[in-house]
Amino acid sequence: MLTNNKIKLIKSLDKKRERIEAGCFVVEGEKMVRELLMSRFETTEVFAVQQYIDELPANLKLKAEITAIGERDLERISFLKTPNKAVALAKLPEIRPLPDLSGLNIALDNVQDPGNLGTIIRTAAWFGIGNVFCSPDTADVYNPKVIQSTMGAIFKVNVCYCNLAELAATARKAGIPMFGTRLDGENLYAAKLPKDAIVVMGNESKGLSAEISVLMDSNLKIPSYAPPSADMESLNVAVATAIVCAEFRRQNS
Amino acid sequence: MLTNNKIKLIKSLDKKRERIEAGCFVVEGEKMVRELLMSRFETTEVFAVQQYIDELPANLKLKAEITAIGERDLERISFLKTPNKAVALAKLPEIRPLPDLSGLNIALDNVQDPGNLGTIIRTAAWFGIGNVFCSPDTADVYNPKVIQSTMGAIFKVNVCYCNLAELAATARKAGIPMFGTRLDGENLYAAKLPKDAIVVMGNESKGLSAEISVLMDSNLKIPSYAPPSADMESLNVAVATAIVCAEFRRQNS
Repeated sequence: MLTNNKIKLIKSLDKKRERIEAGCFVVEGEKMVRELLMSRFETTEVFAVQQYIDELPANLKLKAEITAIGERDLERISFLKTPNKAVALAKLPEIRPLPDLSGLNIALDNVQDPGNLGTIIRTAAWFGIGNVFCSPDTADVYNPKVIQSTMGAIFKVNVCYCNLAELAATARKAGIPMFGTRLDGENLYAAKLPKDAIVVMGNESKGLSAEISVLMDSNLKIPSYAPPSADMESLNVAVATAIVCAEFRRQNS
Repeated sequence: MLTNNKIKLIKSLDKKRERIEAGCFVVEGEKMVRELLMSRFETTEVFAVQQYIDELPANLKLKAEITAIGERDLERISFLKTPNKAVALAKLPEIRPLPDLSGLNIALDNVQDPGNLGTIIRTAAWFGIGNVFCSPDTADVYNPKVIQSTMGAIFKVNVCYCNLAELAATARKAGIPMFGTRLDGENLYAAKLPKDAIVVMGNESKGLSAEISVLMDSNLKIPSYAPPSADMESLNVAVATAIVCAEFRRQNS
């Protein structure tokens, strides 16, 4: 039921602290809530307009407690400018041991912008990348803004918060090389890129932290074609991630 | 001088209508204002803290009327959360005939998100792309948010608002092919990409408009590596632009 306390809870879930305390996060919108119900995440409750509920396949209706609400209540619990038919609460996944690292993986070292994180997860889904590892100081993927900006990709990619130094140790044991990106790295297009790898991207303004940088097996550079000038150009971190992942896939397909 | 009227004018320049009426736009921040003064744009006025003015090279000081202001006035005219030393007014460039189309160009058909536009211009600067053509309904690059999100790239790339059908006619006469992106296009990595080209990207949710789509000489597809599923994945438009431009550069360098 949509009690006042429930409304207050939902609206508090834009804060990480509150999400951790409640153990859940918010997913919104017609398509996103349907994808949530089909995903590996556990949906606890869905609040939706009657028409949406009527149109849900029967097997998805069984997956959570579903409450019909009116447009006005929908507005009260929505984080969107234009609320869209359904809002769901899903359980935060439990912290699990590091997954299998074979294939292509991404690791993010202190990526701060929620939009960048969402775009990177969307790119990971496109390229069939299994895991996106995030350092604990990276933006929180369960922030309602990030969830929405992944456009459903969050349900297809395994996002895992972990200590990147520990990830590096595990990768080394498994023989999976880690690739950083640096302006003095090897030309991305001249490098022989392996099938199994972890591509590590750094903070928007500072790049990779010193502690993580020393753990890289190699560093890659996306060549610039800008005319030489005193000012250093730079690429957005989500754009750089995409260009590097595209080249890994091109060389190994 | 920073009169109350001037403050009112500056604060109104987040609206396109007001920018066109005043014929100017706002550039903010230590580095950005310095790059503006070095660029082809005409700077009309700079408002900055005294220390910033003292540190400006003499030749740049001659380029505009410069007024020293205090931190409080800076806050009053800034669009940034943390105002940064200088705010400048620059003249909107005049509408000019279409430039030379040789080399690699980007055209945007109704790209709406200011952040995406800024990121695309930043990517264009990195790849040494001369021109970014924008349909009249694309987001306005002179919006303060877009200007800031280009991180100075706006001063290095020629951004030109024009009718894309007219651009296509000019390109055809000049023998420069236009490449759209479509899910049923030719695999980007199997295509032979020419040195001279216009890469055309469409709206965030609708893609290329029907009128523009028919004018393409070829269509490219960025291959997806996602496991087959009922839901279509998609890439952010700035990410897709970057992947396509990177491949044009790789094949022609």
